[in-house]
Amino acid sequence: MEKPQIDCLQYANWSTSIFEQMREAKLDAVHATIAYHENFRETIWNVEAWNKQFSNHPDLIFQGFSGEDVRLARETNRTAIFLGFQNPSPIEDDIGLLEIWHRLGIKFMQLSYNNQSLLASGCYENIDSGLTRMGREVINEMNALGIVVDMSHSGQYSTLQAIEASHRPIAITHANPSFWHKAIRNKSNEVLKALSDTGGMLGFSLYPHHLKNGSLCTLESFCNMICRTAELIGTDNIGIGSDLCQDQPDSIVEWMRIGRWTKNIDFGEGSADDSGFPDMPNFYSGNLDFPNIGIGLKSNGMSQIEIDKIMGGNWLRFFDSSFSTS
Amino acid sequence: MEKPQIDCLQYANWSTSIFEQMREAKLDAVHATIAYHENFRETIWNVEAWNKQFSNHPDLIFQGFSGEDVRLARETNRTAIFLGFQNPSPIEDDIGLLEIWHRLGIKFMQLSYNNQSLLASGCYENIDSGLTRMGREVINEMNALGIVVDMSHSGQYSTLQAIEASHRPIAITHANPSFWHKAIRNKSNEVLKALSDTGGMLGFSLYPHHLKNGSLCTLESFCNMICRTAELIGTDNIGIGSDLCQDQPDSIVEWMRIGRWTKNIDFGEGSADDSGFPDMPNFYSGNLDFPNIGIGLKSNGMSQIEIDKIMGGNWLRFFDSSFSTS
Repeated sequence: MEKPQIDCLQYANWSTSIFEQMREAKLDAVHATIAYHENFRETIWNVEAWNKQFSNHPDLIFQGFSGEDVRLARETNRTAIFLGFQNPSPIEDDIGLLEIWHRLGIKFMQLSYNNQSLLASGCYENIDSGLTRMGREVINEMNALGIVVDMSHSGQYSTLQAIEASHRPIAITHANPSFWHKAIRNKSNEVLKALSDTGGMLGFSLYPHHLKNGSLCTLESFCNMICRTAELIGTDNIGIGSDLCQDQPDSIVEWMRIGRWTKNIDFGEGSADDSGFPDMPNFYSGNLDFPNIGIGLKSNGMSQIEIDKIMGGNWLRFFDSSFSTS
Repeated sequence: MEKPQIDCLQYANWSTSIFEQMREAKLDAVHATIAYHENFRETIWNVEAWNKQFSNHPDLIFQGFSGEDVRLARETNRTAIFLGFQNPSPIEDDIGLLEIWHRLGIKFMQLSYNNQSLLASGCYENIDSGLTRMGREVINEMNALGIVVDMSHSGQYSTLQAIEASHRPIAITHANPSFWHKAIRNKSNEVLKALSDTGGMLGFSLYPHHLKNGSLCTLESFCNMICRTAELIGTDNIGIGSDLCQDQPDSIVEWMRIGRWTKNIDFGEGSADDSGFPDMPNFYSGNLDFPNIGIGLKSNGMSQIEIDKIMGGNWLRFFDSSFSTS
């Protein structure tokens, strides 16, 4: 299959219009988040909602379970939707739930989301204590089942420990290098190297708080960052994870940040003056703009072979090897 | 009220026989654990089970909500049962559940049980990272409601941070000083001093893994340990929290240790050769033996005034001040 196009992280306000835009942009696969703080039962409802979408839009989307499904999507002019969690909340305190979720098609799970979880520290905790006793057990189980360990919102020490403890390559589905923009959520060269040295994948994020100059970031600057990352870790372990929250109301970003862990306000990457979703940069307002990245990389002098890997080839190879049982 | 007798931690296989023994031993109050790993809904079932016990044994027991209920128990020749959690699992990831539990009469909650929780590190984790972001929010809420922070199974750094962060005195309901027996669950002089300096309470444990010479521990050795602790931190901040698991089958200790966090075996304080509940020391086989401690303290030369404080007076003062809303 030539030139697959994959966005390995979105949390849009899913609609017919968005699925049509995915088709117009020729996105073969999208990894869709279905849990930030939802517990087991709440996440089941989110799967039910996706089942309804699949049932209502069989001509546009279907649930993806394997790399082969990305090829099927391309052949049938549809988008394969892969489901994942940004927090281990859907397994609650129960390692046995991983097998249930795997059977339901969950392909990615973050070990923590900003805060400490039962498994690992989040990037906003003062102290990052690494993997917990349960965290190590859960990684073994995810490795056995073929659920990808995602450390996008985890602390650096936890991330380095997860890379070491996991027998299979892990992913940081949506973040940028901190050498380009020093955000707590972005990743150090040390993490990027440890990740790619073990076959893990980084998905570049378009979320403005992860971008140099935020909403004013230019396509040229973004693509230059990708080229500089390629110089650091090569072109085989990078892709796109846009973190696109298209059409979401600001109440959603509050849920992401606060969940149920405080009765107070926490602005996360934002601030009291800038508490909602930030404006997207003008070169990336939604799914229709996915191809802009390829155009930008070409302008930055990258070869078409390298561009194809970044736009989806690398993620497809990673899906092929990661979603099989070990 | 003279000479209240309080055991501030038990998890027996509750029965008519045990309640009758409590009466025979003249126990005015017992703090009973209703959650080790149970989630919200499962813990509600445990409250329902207690409601059935209260309904079936109105002549022996009733649910305690305040220090006054200890006095009422003494006056009416019954035992007031105070309910508590050894793990924050019943609040799941939801700070709002604390108000629900407070209304249902929960008086104690440990911030972690051996492992890392969403709030604090457990004593068996390799790294103790202290209070989490959610942990600090939860302490504030417990302080406001009048639910006692219990750090019996938490790591030392987490415990010291909880003592500092809590505006109200905290408790270590069941543990012994590590100067007497070096178990991971026992507490250092540093913790004991920080605890008592802030008005917090230590309950001495009879669980054999916390005892010098384990099941062979003598009453004299146990009471000598209490006297040495009194020399270190005085006699106002110590009491009994027996950790009695009377009549429980070994399957229960496995649930306590493993919950649902691993698919493997973990022997906790035990070992493969000694995986079940250890034998109780011969001076403390059950509730009937509660008065033995007072006898032993007298033999060790302690004054009756001091003995009365340790056997229940201190806990009653602590209940009076801790269970009110702030």
